[in-house]
Amino acid sequence: MSGGTGPHGPGELFLGEIREQPEALRRLLDREADFEAVSAAMRERRPSVVRLVGHGSSDAAASYGVYAFGLLPGWTAMRDSISLTVYYDAKLDLSDSVVIALSQSGETPDVVEYVERAREKGALTVAVTNGTESSLADAADATLPLAAGPERAVAASKTFLNTLAALAWVAGGAAGRGSEIAAGLHRVAAQLSEALEPLEQAVANVAMVFAYVGRMYVIGRGIEFGTAREVALKLTETCRVAAEPLTATDLAHGPIAALDSMFPVWTIASRDQSLPAVLDAAARVIEAGATVVASGNAALEIEGAAHVLPVPEAPLPVLSPLLSVVPGQLFAGALAHAKGLDADYPVGLSKVTRAR
Amino acid sequence: MSGGTGPHGPGELFLGEIREQPEALRRLLDREADFEAVSAAMRERRPSVVRLVGHGSSDAAASYGVYAFGLLPGWTAMRDSISLTVYYDAKLDLSDSVVIALSQSGETPDVVEYVERAREKGALTVAVTNGTESSLADAADATLPLAAGPERAVAASKTFLNTLAALAWVAGGAAGRGSEIAAGLHRVAAQLSEALEPLEQAVANVAMVFAYVGRMYVIGRGIEFGTAREVALKLTETCRVAAEPLTATDLAHGPIAALDSMFPVWTIASRDQSLPAVLDAAARVIEAGATVVASGNAALEIEGAAHVLPVPEAPLPVLSPLLSVVPGQLFAGALAHAKGLDADYPVGLSKVTRAR
Repeated sequence: MSGGTGPHGPGELFLGEIREQPEALRRLLDREADFEAVSAAMRERRPSVVRLVGHGSSDAAASYGVYAFGLLPGWTAMRDSISLTVYYDAKLDLSDSVVIALSQSGETPDVVEYVERAREKGALTVAVTNGTESSLADAADATLPLAAGPERAVAASKTFLNTLAALAWVAGGAAGRGSEIAAGLHRVAAQLSEALEPLEQAVANVAMVFAYVGRMYVIGRGIEFGTAREVALKLTETCRVAAEPLTATDLAHGPIAALDSMFPVWTIASRDQSLPAVLDAAARVIEAGATVVASGNAALEIEGAAHVLPVPEAPLPVLSPLLSVVPGQLFAGALAHAKGLDADYPVGLSKVTRAR
Repeated sequence: MSGGTGPHGPGELFLGEIREQPEALRRLLDREADFEAVSAAMRERRPSVVRLVGHGSSDAAASYGVYAFGLLPGWTAMRDSISLTVYYDAKLDLSDSVVIALSQSGETPDVVEYVERAREKGALTVAVTNGTESSLADAADATLPLAAGPERAVAASKTFLNTLAALAWVAGGAAGRGSEIAAGLHRVAAQLSEALEPLEQAVANVAMVFAYVGRMYVIGRGIEFGTAREVALKLTETCRVAAEPLTATDLAHGPIAALDSMFPVWTIASRDQSLPAVLDAAARVIEAGATVVASGNAALEIEGAAHVLPVPEAPLPVLSPLLSVVPGQLFAGALAHAKGLDADYPVGLSKVTRAR
C-alpha cells in the first residue's frame, strides 16, 4: 500500500464502482414510490418543454434524457443553457416547463442557482442526485434519489448509469409506462451482472494497444450520443486522451479531415433506426485509414473494425445505453492502468466541482 | 500554378473569403424586407420553442441562435435533435414551434427531411441558406437568404458570419428591435473592415509557434460558445488538429485533467456577464501548465496568456461573436499554411455534405 494515493491501488475504486453497477441499479429500482410521485406531478404539469441541466457526466446523461422524453411520452426535452438564466438573466417564460437538474453531488453551484431561479419563475423543478441532503435537493420542488451508494472515484460510473436509469424511468412514468420500464431495468441489471466479467477481460487486451494514443473520436448517434459523450469524458479525465464525442453525421461535416492511422475512433453501434447512419460513418472512418473500435449491441455489424466489444441487447431499445456505456468505462480504467495513471484521482479534478 | 489544386494557391480561396466578410455582411443587410417579413410571421406564431437545426458550422451558428433568441425576444430556442424526428419518428407536438433550418448549401439531406416533417406537423419553417434555389428553400415556408455570394473554399467563413448576422437580425426583429440590430451590424461591418488586416498580421506570427500541435481546446461561454465551436471546427477541418470546443465550466468538469504544456487552449473572452467564468477557466488552464491564446474583445484581461489577439468591441454585446470568430478563422488559415496543408480543399470533405 506504500506510495499509493489511499488504501487502494491506483484505479481500484473506479473499477470497483463499475463492477458494482448492477447492484446500484437494483437499489434505484427500490425507489418506486419516489418515481411514481414525480412522474405524476410532471404529467399534471403537461410541460411544453423539459429543461435538463448538468455539467460533465450529468450533461452527457442529459443528452440521453432528450431521447428518453422524446421517445417515451413524446415530450420536447432540451439541454438548457445555464448561462442564459444564471449569468444573463434572460426573460424566459418557464411557467410551463419542467426542470430536471442533474448533479451527482447536488452541490454544483450554477446548477443549484439555475434551479432556484427557475422555481421562482414557476417551473416545476426536480433534482436527480446521489446527494439527497444536498443544496440541490433543498432548492428543488422534488428530488429523485440516485441511490447509487457513495461514489469515491472522482470519475463517475455508477452514478452515471443510475442517472440514465432515473431518466428512463421518470420519462416512462410520464408516458404511463413506468412499470414496463422498471421491468426492463431489472432485466438490464441481470444482463450487466453477466456481461461485466467477460467484457473486463476483452477490454484489457484492447487497451494495451492504445497506450500511446493522444487523441480519439467517440461516435454515436441518436439515443447513443449521450453514451458517446460519457465515454469521451471518461477517456479525457482518466487517461489524458483528447477524446471528442461526435454524432455519426457531424463526423462527416469536418472532423473526418483530421483522421489518420494514429487517430482511433470508438464507435457505438446499437440496433435501432440510427444504425445505418453509424455504419456509414464507420465505413468512412475505415476508408480514411483510422482504427475503429466497435462497441454496442450491433458492434459485429461494423465491417473492418480492428476491435469488437459487443454487449447484450437490452429488452427495449431505449435502454441500450445502460449496456453500451460499460465497455467504454472499462476501457478507460484499463487504458489509465496501461498508461500508469490513477483513474481514481485524475490530476486537477475533485469529486465535487465548484467551478462556475 | 503547377501542382496546385486549382487556379489559386493553397488556402487562397479561404483567406479571400475571410477578407470578403465585411462586404458579404453588407450584402445581407440589403435584404431588410425578407427579414421584416419573417420576423413578423414569427411574432404572429408566438412559438413556445424555436427549434434550430444544422450540422457543422451551421450547428455552431445554432448555438449562437439559442442566445440571440434568449436575449433579444426572450424566447426559448434549442438545437433540436434531428434524429428524433427523422430517424425515430418521435411523436412530438410541433404545432407551436418555429423551426429555423441552417444549411449554407441548402442541400444537407437530413436537414431538408427534418423541415419537411416539421412542416407537416404544423411548425412554421424558415430556411436560412446561401442556396436560395435549394431543396431546403423549396421545403420551408419561408427563406432568409444569406446573400454571402458564392463560397468556394470547403471550410465555411463568410456564410458562417452571415448566419450569425441573420440569426441576430431575425431574433431582433422578433423583439421589435430589427432596425437597432441592423444598425449594429452595419457598424460591425465597418469594424471588421478596419480590423482584418492588422489581425491577419498578428495571427501569422502566432500560427508559426503551433505548427506541431496535434490537439487543442477552444473555450468560450454563453454567447461565445458557438464561436468556440466554429473555431474548433475550422482548426479540425483545415489543420488536422483535434480541437474540441468546451464551455469554460465544462473544462473544469473533466477535460482540465488532460492538459499539459503541449496542449494549447484557445480562449474567447468577451466583455459580458460570462466573462468572470472565462477568466477563472483561463487561470486554471495556465495553472495546469498549458499555453493560452487569448482572443475576443476582453483578451487583454486574461493574465498570463502567451498570445493575445484582441478584437474591437461590438456596438451591442450580442453582436460580439461576429468579431471574435475572425482571429480563429485567420489562425486556422495561417496554421494550415504553416503545416503545408491546403485549407481550401481538406482531405475527405466536400462543399455539400450529403452524409446522413
